[in-house]
Amino acid sequence: MPRQMHLGLFILGTGSHIAGWRYPGAVKSFQDFSAVADIARTAERGKFDLIFMGDNLNADPAAHPSYTLRLEPLTMLAAVATATKHIGLGATVSTTYSDPFSVARVFASLDHISGGRAAWNAVTTANPAAAANFGTVHPDHARRYEMAGEFIDVVTGLWDCWEDDAVVADVESGVYIDPAKVHSLDHEGAFFKVKGPVNIGRAPQGRPIILQAGGSEPGQQLAARTADVVFSVVQEIGEARKGYASLKDRLAGFGRAPEDVTVLPGVMPVVGRTDEEAFETLAVLQGFIDSSNGLALLSDRLGIDMSGYDLDGPIPDIPLPDTYHSFASVMLSKARRENMKLRDLYNLTAAARGHWVLCGSPTTIADTLEEWFTTGAADGFNVMPPFFHKGFEDFVDLVVPELQRRGLFRTEYGGKTLRDNLGLARPA
Amino acid sequence: MPRQMHLGLFILGTGSHIAGWRYPGAVKSFQDFSAVADIARTAERGKFDLIFMGDNLNADPAAHPSYTLRLEPLTMLAAVATATKHIGLGATVSTTYSDPFSVARVFASLDHISGGRAAWNAVTTANPAAAANFGTVHPDHARRYEMAGEFIDVVTGLWDCWEDDAVVADVESGVYIDPAKVHSLDHEGAFFKVKGPVNIGRAPQGRPIILQAGGSEPGQQLAARTADVVFSVVQEIGEARKGYASLKDRLAGFGRAPEDVTVLPGVMPVVGRTDEEAFETLAVLQGFIDSSNGLALLSDRLGIDMSGYDLDGPIPDIPLPDTYHSFASVMLSKARRENMKLRDLYNLTAAARGHWVLCGSPTTIADTLEEWFTTGAADGFNVMPPFFHKGFEDFVDLVVPELQRRGLFRTEYGGKTLRDNLGLARPA
Repeated sequence: MPRQMHLGLFILGTGSHIAGWRYPGAVKSFQDFSAVADIARTAERGKFDLIFMGDNLNADPAAHPSYTLRLEPLTMLAAVATATKHIGLGATVSTTYSDPFSVARVFASLDHISGGRAAWNAVTTANPAAAANFGTVHPDHARRYEMAGEFIDVVTGLWDCWEDDAVVADVESGVYIDPAKVHSLDHEGAFFKVKGPVNIGRAPQGRPIILQAGGSEPGQQLAARTADVVFSVVQEIGEARKGYASLKDRLAGFGRAPEDVTVLPGVMPVVGRTDEEAFETLAVLQGFIDSSNGLALLSDRLGIDMSGYDLDGPIPDIPLPDTYHSFASVMLSKARRENMKLRDLYNLTAAARGHWVLCGSPTTIADTLEEWFTTGAADGFNVMPPFFHKGFEDFVDLVVPELQRRGLFRTEYGGKTLRDNLGLARPA
Repeated sequence: MPRQMHLGLFILGTGSHIAGWRYPGAVKSFQDFSAVADIARTAERGKFDLIFMGDNLNADPAAHPSYTLRLEPLTMLAAVATATKHIGLGATVSTTYSDPFSVARVFASLDHISGGRAAWNAVTTANPAAAANFGTVHPDHARRYEMAGEFIDVVTGLWDCWEDDAVVADVESGVYIDPAKVHSLDHEGAFFKVKGPVNIGRAPQGRPIILQAGGSEPGQQLAARTADVVFSVVQEIGEARKGYASLKDRLAGFGRAPEDVTVLPGVMPVVGRTDEEAFETLAVLQGFIDSSNGLALLSDRLGIDMSGYDLDGPIPDIPLPDTYHSFASVMLSKARRENMKLRDLYNLTAAARGHWVLCGSPTTIADTLEEWFTTGAADGFNVMPPFFHKGFEDFVDLVVPELQRRGLFRTEYGGKTLRDNLGLARPA
């Protein structure tokens, strides 16, 4: 079978565009589960590999509405599991402000509940405001990645404590468990000390899928060692190809093959029946941005308070904070490359939170995605609709069929689990 | 309307009886979500107020099968939310090995997802084996209750950060939130430092329901101050009346009325068409106990290794461990009162994990529950079936209609939320 794209849907309830909720008829809340269930069913109708939910650990009433008020990812996706049949369920959980025993449990539980559709987006928390909600001090970037590496090793170790056939449940003899097939973990590392075993059996996928999004050097190394799927933040194809090749090249160093990791750049598609119609929709959305919410989101994404700078001046020469390295680099390098004013940069950030915006007719969008897919920039895409439902339904109803006609995307789910649909092997 | 009972279903996937899974046709796994969904729908058919799931934070392959391998409570109940419409969803989460910001989020999220049906069973973790999975030292009983009190205050404080009408979402003006109606918490206590606000809005119930089960002196005080529902561990009616009166009497000291807290003793019903048939079923179940699993469960419940004692000797004069005060007291005082041998005590514990076993025809069971309900021993019951599905279906199909005929239990759900169905007021 020819190589086909994988598609993820990034669910941010009111859409990736900061003012998407103001679009006529758009979903206005990320706390309304019936809207989320509808979105998930639309994604399943579009044969998406997975839906994927970000997270944050603080509320800033000036930020993106869906950053400020949101359902918690694991409870939300467990509820979605019951409302869907095939689609993968990816939830972000921080390695900075969680504990590995609990994380191993919840994802194994989601995997059992969903029949093998769970995925963990293992992130480090960038926003230092989270620390105040956990009574602690925010670790610096390097330390967060050291913690993340050990955290992931502990979680996967806990997932491996129970062999596939450890549960006997033999009514006749009364033997429920074969203790020879249950192992403790006995992990003692720099950050975590965890005995195990975990109190949930081997997951249907063996291990739930691990997603990652870190673009910094330690983030790339961690992804090359541990991730099954990588969401990348890119703005143009040259940069995307470079990042794609760099990640795939690293894999051999960890005894892995290029096909062991699926790379999905984030893209906000704005779909119209014609290119003009799409640009009109984008213009309507951009007209909803005001400088206060635009600057608040930019400040959040850069980790620097930008409210004091001249909107019509050049991008100020600001030092990148240690905590926000990867995302801020991509944005600032694009802004400088294109001689943007600060106003342009906040408009860009408000549109898609800094992700790539792709605007056009179904043909234009399919052409571009095909080019990225066939020339070493992507294994598929992480789709970030600007608003729901229309902003996503147009992608499913207009772009997906075009990709299917070209043989670039599945017309039916092939496997039973997310791991099957991603074409990844079950770990022994 | 005359006072009516409230009924909770305690879900332990293979049943409360340690060997319930060996009963012909019984559910053999607590990792099979389709079985859990069937159980929840049966409970809803029986008009139960809520289903309620215990938890533990370690796996002992020698213990009760559903202690050792289980779905994680929050993910499981979020999935149940989608499979049901009316029933309350209570999950146990430890105040000893969790953090309050995350706990506030997940229960508020479950409340939004379920339309106001979430309940938190706020426990302290008794089993010191949990500590090794969290790289820490197990706090003693007194300290655990001090932590629990502060933990619950932080969680309820976080639930109160957002006023009911803080979300404006006015498309015209672009105002999403009224910042005057969002408050930080700024808690700094002996154990927790949490700034807030939480990143999820006011829950449909105002606050999710708080359940508690602690029977020790600090447990009773905490329940009197903070609980909406109390699950009690009792073995006979005199003791139950004493505990009921003691708890209700404490409420005035916290400015609360007797009807503000619903007291539900745990009961394992073994139902037959006749008393004889019920006792036969119990005998079959007891025949499945062997000394190794019986003693392992007893050791777990007492917090003392009992494997070295003579099974046909008297109950040894063992000091109660600090950590297990309440449950162990109830069991040991019953055993000594009735001159039990160690074998009797482990059989009793294996039957219902130390809870009250009520065996008989629907009439016998209804008579007994009515007596408890009408003479100051209970506001309803926490039903702990010995196995699923028949062990619970018999209660729903035979006992519930008898209670309904007597006017002791609802025939339809009256309210929209769990709080409504419990007859509790929404907090301002």
